[in-house]
Amino acid sequence: MKEDTKQRLIMTGARIMHLKGFNNTGIQEILDTAGIPKGSFYNFFKSKEDFGLQVIDYFVGFFLQISNQFLGDKSHPPLERIRLLLGWFIEFFESTDYTLGCPIGNFAQEMGDVNPAFREKLKTSLDSMARQFVDVLLEARESGHLSKTLNAQDTARFMISSWEGALMSMKVEKSTEPLETHARFIFDYILKAEWKTLERVTH
Amino acid sequence: MKEDTKQRLIMTGARIMHLKGFNNTGIQEILDTAGIPKGSFYNFFKSKEDFGLQVIDYFVGFFLQISNQFLGDKSHPPLERIRLLLGWFIEFFESTDYTLGCPIGNFAQEMGDVNPAFREKLKTSLDSMARQFVDVLLEARESGHLSKTLNAQDTARFMISSWEGALMSMKVEKSTEPLETHARFIFDYILKAEWKTLERVTH
Repeated sequence: MKEDTKQRLIMTGARIMHLKGFNNTGIQEILDTAGIPKGSFYNFFKSKEDFGLQVIDYFVGFFLQISNQFLGDKSHPPLERIRLLLGWFIEFFESTDYTLGCPIGNFAQEMGDVNPAFREKLKTSLDSMARQFVDVLLEARESGHLSKTLNAQDTARFMISSWEGALMSMKVEKSTEPLETHARFIFDYILKAEWKTLERVTH
Repeated sequence: MKEDTKQRLIMTGARIMHLKGFNNTGIQEILDTAGIPKGSFYNFFKSKEDFGLQVIDYFVGFFLQISNQFLGDKSHPPLERIRLLLGWFIEFFESTDYTLGCPIGNFAQEMGDVNPAFREKLKTSLDSMARQFVDVLLEARESGHLSKTLNAQDTARFMISSWEGALMSMKVEKSTEPLETHARFIFDYILKAEWKTLERVTH
């Protein structure tokens, strides 16, 4: 029950902060939306900062779960798995009317400069997100689907940061075009595999 | 004198918002920092939103001035001008200890979803930033420095959004490595020109 309440606060806070940002979201608003009395917040969290750090963990867990579902699915060749993952995200953002973007990127943009605890947490988060891509890229090199001259670590990091920028453009353009352009450039020029018409996958 | 005060408010607000974001910056803090009495704010600006939109114009003007200084300098071949511009920005962010990032990207991340007036202004801003790159890329195609198969419009947009993402990573990693990785991937794989050791330029 206690864990339920805590989890409900994190999920509610995550949803509101994803849209409005960390600073612009009040603890009271989270409690009101979750229907939880004020006193209990500090039973679970030391501070709003502590809460924000746990919201980031929640988002990273969510991301790793989705990406592992695609990148870990060995029934497809490695680069195809990346293609399916990007396709899933592009459809996801279509369904949310091009809003929200990546919560990790949003937090990084907002808090990276001003709060060292957030920065450290975000750095670790981006590292663990990159690691999954590194594994798939190494597998693709091994199986001859990817040039041996491509550094897997750098490529994974470039793919992730470039994707974060594409999400920023998506929000402003209200279109998935920046995401499709990202995918096309990554596939056509970096991975040198064709970025075909997306296979439609359900989410 | 009146214009002086207005300009001083915009420059002060721009500096604070660049670091802390729009929502996290109060009008009072801007007035205090600029040493201007409270009453006068609303002589110049209809609202904090109106102020924010003028801060964006200020930043875009600043960016276009810097980028034109490099991209418009016909004493270098077109791709070399892009290289010099990126090099200048990489040095700039070294000098600011990897903070701040692109104000347009920060605003887009924070306000793109929640405020249509900001979104419209940011879209126009990114368009005008891309246009300068399109011109240089077209010139490079014309002079045989760039493959004719590369779409200048898409390439310019990819370069800008990918750069925005690299700046986000820079803030979290406290290093220019994401910017150098960006530059290397854009030059080596997209523009197919060598990303050499940067010529050091002063700023």
